[in-house]
Amino acid sequence: MDAISVIRDKRDRRELSGAQIDWIIDAYTRGVVADEQMSALAMAIFLNGMNRAEISRWTAAMIASGERMDFGGLSRPTADKHSTGGVGDKITLPLAPLVAACGAAVPQLSGRGLGHTGGTLDKLESIPGWRASLGNAELMEVLGSVGSVICAAGDGLAPADKRLYALRDVTGTVESLPLIASSIMSKKIAEGTGSLVLDVKTGSGAFMKNAEDARELAATMVELGQDHGVRTVALLTDMSTPLGRTAGNALEVREAVDVLSGGGPADVVELTVALAREMLAAAGLSGADPERALADGSAMDVWRRMIAAQGGDPSAPLPRAHEQHIVTAPVSGVLTRLDAYAVGLCAWRLGAGRARKEDPVQAGAGVELHAKPGDRILEGAPLFTLHTDTPDALPYAQEALTDAYDIGPSEAFAPSPLILDRVTA
Amino acid sequence: MDAISVIRDKRDRRELSGAQIDWIIDAYTRGVVADEQMSALAMAIFLNGMNRAEISRWTAAMIASGERMDFGGLSRPTADKHSTGGVGDKITLPLAPLVAACGAAVPQLSGRGLGHTGGTLDKLESIPGWRASLGNAELMEVLGSVGSVICAAGDGLAPADKRLYALRDVTGTVESLPLIASSIMSKKIAEGTGSLVLDVKTGSGAFMKNAEDARELAATMVELGQDHGVRTVALLTDMSTPLGRTAGNALEVREAVDVLSGGGPADVVELTVALAREMLAAAGLSGADPERALADGSAMDVWRRMIAAQGGDPSAPLPRAHEQHIVTAPVSGVLTRLDAYAVGLCAWRLGAGRARKEDPVQAGAGVELHAKPGDRILEGAPLFTLHTDTPDALPYAQEALTDAYDIGPSEAFAPSPLILDRVTA
Repeated sequence: MDAISVIRDKRDRRELSGAQIDWIIDAYTRGVVADEQMSALAMAIFLNGMNRAEISRWTAAMIASGERMDFGGLSRPTADKHSTGGVGDKITLPLAPLVAACGAAVPQLSGRGLGHTGGTLDKLESIPGWRASLGNAELMEVLGSVGSVICAAGDGLAPADKRLYALRDVTGTVESLPLIASSIMSKKIAEGTGSLVLDVKTGSGAFMKNAEDARELAATMVELGQDHGVRTVALLTDMSTPLGRTAGNALEVREAVDVLSGGGPADVVELTVALAREMLAAAGLSGADPERALADGSAMDVWRRMIAAQGGDPSAPLPRAHEQHIVTAPVSGVLTRLDAYAVGLCAWRLGAGRARKEDPVQAGAGVELHAKPGDRILEGAPLFTLHTDTPDALPYAQEALTDAYDIGPSEAFAPSPLILDRVTA
Repeated sequence: MDAISVIRDKRDRRELSGAQIDWIIDAYTRGVVADEQMSALAMAIFLNGMNRAEISRWTAAMIASGERMDFGGLSRPTADKHSTGGVGDKITLPLAPLVAACGAAVPQLSGRGLGHTGGTLDKLESIPGWRASLGNAELMEVLGSVGSVICAAGDGLAPADKRLYALRDVTGTVESLPLIASSIMSKKIAEGTGSLVLDVKTGSGAFMKNAEDARELAATMVELGQDHGVRTVALLTDMSTPLGRTAGNALEVREAVDVLSGGGPADVVELTVALAREMLAAAGLSGADPERALADGSAMDVWRRMIAAQGGDPSAPLPRAHEQHIVTAPVSGVLTRLDAYAVGLCAWRLGAGRARKEDPVQAGAGVELHAKPGDRILEGAPLFTLHTDTPDALPYAQEALTDAYDIGPSEAFAPSPLILDRVTA
């Protein structure tokens, strides 16, 4: 077995055998296959695809590259959620404590942001004192005592994926269905959850720009979950406009706390509750009532204990950026379109995101939206507030908003549903 | 300008701009673009191609990555040849001194073998004392005094190609028309020859297995030569069966000396003379008579002086392998087919070739052919003699010959021409 023959087979559109896939993932993890060989294979997979059998084996090999966690000792059923990422997507923050408040255990291993989409860990790190890295024992302890935990995935889970993910990021091989599906699912399956709900996004702010690709990704991941004994269901949701009214780190934490206080933007509440219902049903807790857990403060109680268990002060004021700049509406009318990608790019340029893995992010930076599609707005009224510690970045960030929205007559606005479809095995 | 956007453009089938190509080749030479990024780009080029404008710019950028030699100070016109490589292709050995004997200067910068095809430098290194590496000053001196020189290309010529060639070798991106054409032509143009004759091979023993691909490669390279002011012509030649009666290092030197002595196999003589005529015509020396230069010993005289000028002893006995093994004909009849790739693979396994760049080769190893297609042969008569210093390799080497030939009735033999076509601008 050698790397060149595996690369050639995929290059020439031949199906890879199980033995070839097992070998290359193992050899890559051990450093026998070099980065330049794996990136050539990744590009061949990007352009020539993999069939379901290949994706399933690829996922299994990445799981086998590291340890698997086991939550069998907990008294509660486990439920987990994964979002393919979008702009303003702070759903994990209220969702994890909400589902825990309803009786499930939620081990939420999360990532950092790259590019125009934010990362859950970056958002939580804006809370003074909060730590993302826990050892396995500490993770188990927080999960057992609080019911939910949001932390960084340990180095032991799917190390092949960790290395391949970083490689894809610098070699133009990110947006590949087989590679995305196997990357997400290998981490989630190795993590050891009993049930999984996927939020697969489509639209300008998502990796999958069109709904058909997103639906295929969802179906592939649901099937991978079933293959490995994890009850998996996916919601296909709209990401053509940002979720909620903020995109940034501390800005989004504030909005998540609003939702846990029983308020918050309608779309964030709708999606949080819908995903909570799916997670609870998958965990066999269909009788629970997530809307009540938001209204009666029990979800907020779990949130405060969860933040405190990881060193954070849930009562401390959140950081604010040094500079605020208001962008006003040039005309009166109805906001008929607000583009997710443009807002994500603007927040990223303001300092909320990073260009390279090793870059820091600004806790206070981001975009506040004063109107959402369908809202009526008056000429001269605030449309966006831009927050940043680096005012030099303002002109460049504002440029991203040039074609980001339309204001027109109310007839020009066509409301579209947030939850587009539900995909099951 | 960044590597990821260049990779993405080619991945998504967009034409690369001249500025993108200049940037990526320069940045790769300087180590700013990493091997794993270049290999992803090479795979995208392999699968999505490059158009003529992109190939021309890519070639120019690789030339610009290093120095260019200048033979303008010589009293004779320069002529060079390049073969895309095959089994038993020792043509450079008699050809360079032959063309020099007819009045041109022949600066033949050559390479080593990899895989089933032999390398000119490996063959010459079987001559006791002969040195492949010359400095630029020494190269000029030998060329000026002898008229021809065969040596290793210096590190200063097209360093981007040198790095990319090694990378393609381990990443399954060798057999790509744009990458082959630009690699060959960047080296030859940087070398500074005034005219160039290409021997583009097709058939089982060649990189280009079918004639249409070979013709397109030839046309692309001829155009690249014209773009850079080098008079270039290509012959399309058959490589479905080995050239001559030997494949190996010292074995092929012996055969080359036979040709320079006025003898040698008919096909080697035919191709040597045809290429010599093309080189002389391209150099403006159409009146010269290469057949006479072989018959009257003047080509042999240049050969002896050329070998001696690089430290070799042209009179010393050539090394022989320790073991010889004869393979006999299983039936009587006419040899109707003898496969080039199989013979090349057998010679390689006997020790004539290398699997990795750093491996040594055996001077004496290789295959002697006692019959060529069209020859009548008797049951039990020798068909091949296998030469090796590592007799353990014999069974594995012999295995390569299992389906290498057919013996049948004379009606089953269809003679085919050696020179298939001539491609000019």
